[in-house]
Amino acid sequence: MSRSPTSHPRDASDEALRTFLASAHRVDLALWLSQLPRDEAWQHLSGLELSRQAMVFENLPLDVQVAMARKVPRQSLARIVHAMDADGRADFYKRLSPGEQDRLAGDLEPEDRDDVLRLSTYAEECAGAIMTSDYATLDADMTAERALAELRRQAPGTETIYRSYVVDRDHRLMGSVRLHALILSADDTPITDLMESAPVSVALDTDQEDVGKLIAHYDLLAIPVVDSDGRLMGIVTHDDAADVMQAEATEDFQKISIVLPFTQNLLQAGIGMLYSRRIVWLTLLVFGNLFSGAGIAYFEDMILAYVSLVFFLPLLIDSSGNAGSQSATLMVRALATGDVALKDWRDLILRELAVAAALGGTMAAVVFPVGAWRGGVDIALTVGLTMFAVVMIGSLVGMSLPFLLSRLRLDPATASGPLVTTISDATGVLVYFSIATLILSL
Amino acid sequence: MSRSPTSHPRDASDEALRTFLASAHRVDLALWLSQLPRDEAWQHLSGLELSRQAMVFENLPLDVQVAMARKVPRQSLARIVHAMDADGRADFYKRLSPGEQDRLAGDLEPEDRDDVLRLSTYAEECAGAIMTSDYATLDADMTAERALAELRRQAPGTETIYRSYVVDRDHRLMGSVRLHALILSADDTPITDLMESAPVSVALDTDQEDVGKLIAHYDLLAIPVVDSDGRLMGIVTHDDAADVMQAEATEDFQKISIVLPFTQNLLQAGIGMLYSRRIVWLTLLVFGNLFSGAGIAYFEDMILAYVSLVFFLPLLIDSSGNAGSQSATLMVRALATGDVALKDWRDLILRELAVAAALGGTMAAVVFPVGAWRGGVDIALTVGLTMFAVVMIGSLVGMSLPFLLSRLRLDPATASGPLVTTISDATGVLVYFSIATLILSL
Repeated sequence: MSRSPTSHPRDASDEALRTFLASAHRVDLALWLSQLPRDEAWQHLSGLELSRQAMVFENLPLDVQVAMARKVPRQSLARIVHAMDADGRADFYKRLSPGEQDRLAGDLEPEDRDDVLRLSTYAEECAGAIMTSDYATLDADMTAERALAELRRQAPGTETIYRSYVVDRDHRLMGSVRLHALILSADDTPITDLMESAPVSVALDTDQEDVGKLIAHYDLLAIPVVDSDGRLMGIVTHDDAADVMQAEATEDFQKISIVLPFTQNLLQAGIGMLYSRRIVWLTLLVFGNLFSGAGIAYFEDMILAYVSLVFFLPLLIDSSGNAGSQSATLMVRALATGDVALKDWRDLILRELAVAAALGGTMAAVVFPVGAWRGGVDIALTVGLTMFAVVMIGSLVGMSLPFLLSRLRLDPATASGPLVTTISDATGVLVYFSIATLILSL
Repeated sequence: MSRSPTSHPRDASDEALRTFLASAHRVDLALWLSQLPRDEAWQHLSGLELSRQAMVFENLPLDVQVAMARKVPRQSLARIVHAMDADGRADFYKRLSPGEQDRLAGDLEPEDRDDVLRLSTYAEECAGAIMTSDYATLDADMTAERALAELRRQAPGTETIYRSYVVDRDHRLMGSVRLHALILSADDTPITDLMESAPVSVALDTDQEDVGKLIAHYDLLAIPVVDSDGRLMGIVTHDDAADVMQAEATEDFQKISIVLPFTQNLLQAGIGMLYSRRIVWLTLLVFGNLFSGAGIAYFEDMILAYVSLVFFLPLLIDSSGNAGSQSATLMVRALATGDVALKDWRDLILRELAVAAALGGTMAAVVFPVGAWRGGVDIALTVGLTMFAVVMIGSLVGMSLPFLLSRLRLDPATASGPLVTTISDATGVLVYFSIATLILSL
C-alpha cells in the first residue's frame, strides 16, 4: 500500500521521479521527503503547485517542518502557510521559536495572522489546541438550494463541507446540517427543517481525550467547539480525534510501565531522553523496595532457621505483583475508556474479592505440593497460606489504587504494575514471615 | 453531553418521555434502552418510526440486540433488520444461534438475506468482517451532473455518499470520487477527471488493525475492500475503524498485564470469566518462578553465611523486572503502532545497551551506600555490581522478547512485564549469588 519510491533511488529517471512527485499521496510524499536532506527536500517541494506544496508540508513531522522552514525563502513560506489548513498552520506556528514566530506573523496576511495567533493561544491537549477554523457556516433563513450554493462558494477554502454549521448573527451555534440531507431535499426546504438543532459540542478547554471519546461515541465526522457564550470557535475533525486517541493510548502504555510520557517516535528517541524518562520511577521504586528489605531484615533469624523459606520468596512476591498488575491495568484501561466510573468502586471491589480468592486458592493449591517437597507440611502450609494472602492483597491494591489516585485528582495510570508490585512486596514479605513465624514456631 | 433521561424516571410525564424518545440521539437512546428490562425496552422501541427503530436497535450492545430479538415478533424483526445498515445487520446475525439465524434468514427479503449471508462468511477481525455493503457506485462514463443525480438516487439507502466508487462492468474498482469535488465541478466534467484512480484499498482478509492504521495514516473517511480480482466488495468507514483501534489497544493492555483477552465491558464481566482469563498466566509464571527458587536453593549455604544478602533480593529482582517492563512495553506499543519494524532491531539494541548501562549505573550508585550501611564494602560491591548487571539483563530481555516473538510469528504483546520479570528473575538470582560468591569468598 506504500507509495514511497523506495524502488526509486534518487538517481532514477527524472521521468519516474516527476511522476511520483505529481501523483503520490501527500502523506506518502511527505514521508519520503522527511527522510531526505532538507535542501534536497525543499528542492522537490518547491517544484510542486502551491496547494499541493502546502498539503505535503503539513504532513511532514513537525520537527521536519521547522527544520525545512529555515531553508525556505520567507515569501515562499508565507505562501505555503497561507495555503495550509488552519489547524496544521497553528501546530507549525507553535513549534517555531519566538523570533521565528514574530517574523512569520509579520509576513502573513492579516487574516492568516489573526487566525494563527488565535488558535495558538489555547491550552495544549484541549479542544482549542486541536481544532481547525476551516468549516462552513450557513444562515438559519436559507433554503436547501441557497445553502448548497453557499457551500459551493465556501468549499474551495474549506476542508469539511459534509457537515456545516448554522450560526446566528453573533456567530452562536444554532445547529448542524449534513450535506447528505441538503442533497436529498427539495430546493425550497428551509434548512431549519434539516438541521440538528442541539448538536453535540465541546468547550475550548475540554480535554482532548474527552473530545475523542465523544466523536467515537456518536460516530461523528466532526464536532463543533464553542465558547462560553455558545459562539462557534472551530471544529475538531474525526481524523485528528483518531490521532489523539492513539496518542493517549500510547501515553497510558508508557505510564503503566513507569515511563514518564514522551511523544517522540521510539525509533528516533535519544539516549538521554529515554534515560531521563525511565530513571525517575526506577529510582523511586528502589526506595520503595527498601521497605521489603526492612521487613526481611526484621525476620533474619527466621531465615537462618528455615533457609528453605527463601526458595519461595521470588515466587510469592512475583505472584502478588502479577495479580496486582492484572487488576491495576484492567482498571486503568476501563477508567480511561469510560467503561467504568468512580461510582462503580463498591461493586467492583466485591467482585475482585471473589476473583482474587479463587485465584489465590488455585495458586495456593499449586504451590502446596512444592512446599511439601521442599520442606514438609509446615513449609507447605506456610507457603500456601501466604500465597493465598498475597494474591488477595496484590489484587486489592491493584484494583483500588487507580480509584484512589482518581479520587485524589491524580492520573489513575500512575497505578502501574511496578508500583503495585512494590507496595504488595512490602506487605507480602511481612505476611510471609509472620505466617512462617506462627506456623513454624508452633 | 449525555442525553439520557436519568432525570426522567420511567414514571415521568408521558410528554417528557415522548420528547426524549423522539429527539434523543440514537446512541443515547440505545444506551438508555439497554438498561431497561427487555419487554419495556421493546415497548418503547416499537413505538418509533421504522428507520429510527433500526438505527437505535443497531446501537444496542450486541448481547442486548440478541436478547431483545427474542421479544420481538418475527415480522417486526425482519423489518428492523431490513432497515439496518449492512454491517450492523451482519454483526447481529453472527451473534444469533444457528436456529435463530435460519429463522431470520427465512424471514428476510432475498436481497437482505444474500447480503447478510455474504458478509457473515468473512473471517473475524478482518476487513471482510467489519465492512459494510452500503456504499455508492458510479460509472466511469458519467459527468459530474449525472453522478450527482445518481448519488441523489442512491443516497436514501446509503450511509456514505461523501466518497463514492467508480466501478467497471465487472464491479472492479477503478477509482474514488469525493462529493466535495462533484459539488465544485461544472456539470459536464467527466468524473474520470475528478476521480482518484488508484485509491488505497484493502483485501477481504486484511487484519482489522492494519485497516485501521491505513485509515488513520491517510485520514480517510472510508476505505474500499476488494477481492483478489480487484472487485469492490464493501467499504470500512472511519468510525468503525476508530472502534477497532480502541479495541485493539484494550486487547494489548490486557495482554501485557498477562490477562487473556476478552471483549466484555469490565463492569459486566463475570467472576468465572475473569478468573479463567487471569489464572492461566499466573499459574504458568509460578512454574517459571520455580527456576528462581532453584537458583536460590543452589546458593543456600551462601545465604546462611551472609544472610544480609536476602535484604536486597526483592530490590534487585524488582529493579530488573521494572527496567525490563519499561523496555518491553515501549517496544510492544511501538511495534503495534508501526513506529518501529522488525528490521530496526539492531539499532534499537545498541541504543538500549547504552540506556540500560546508564540506568544500571545510576541505580548501582544508589544502592551502593545502602549495601555499605547494611554489610560493609563487600556487600556494597556485590549489590552494586549485581544491580548494574540485572538492569542490563532485564532491559535487554525486555527489548528483545517482542522482536523474538514477532519473528516466531507470535503476538509480541505476549512479552508482558510479568513474563520479562520472571525470566530476568531467574537469571538475576544466579548473577546475584554468583557475584556474591566471587566477592565474599575472596
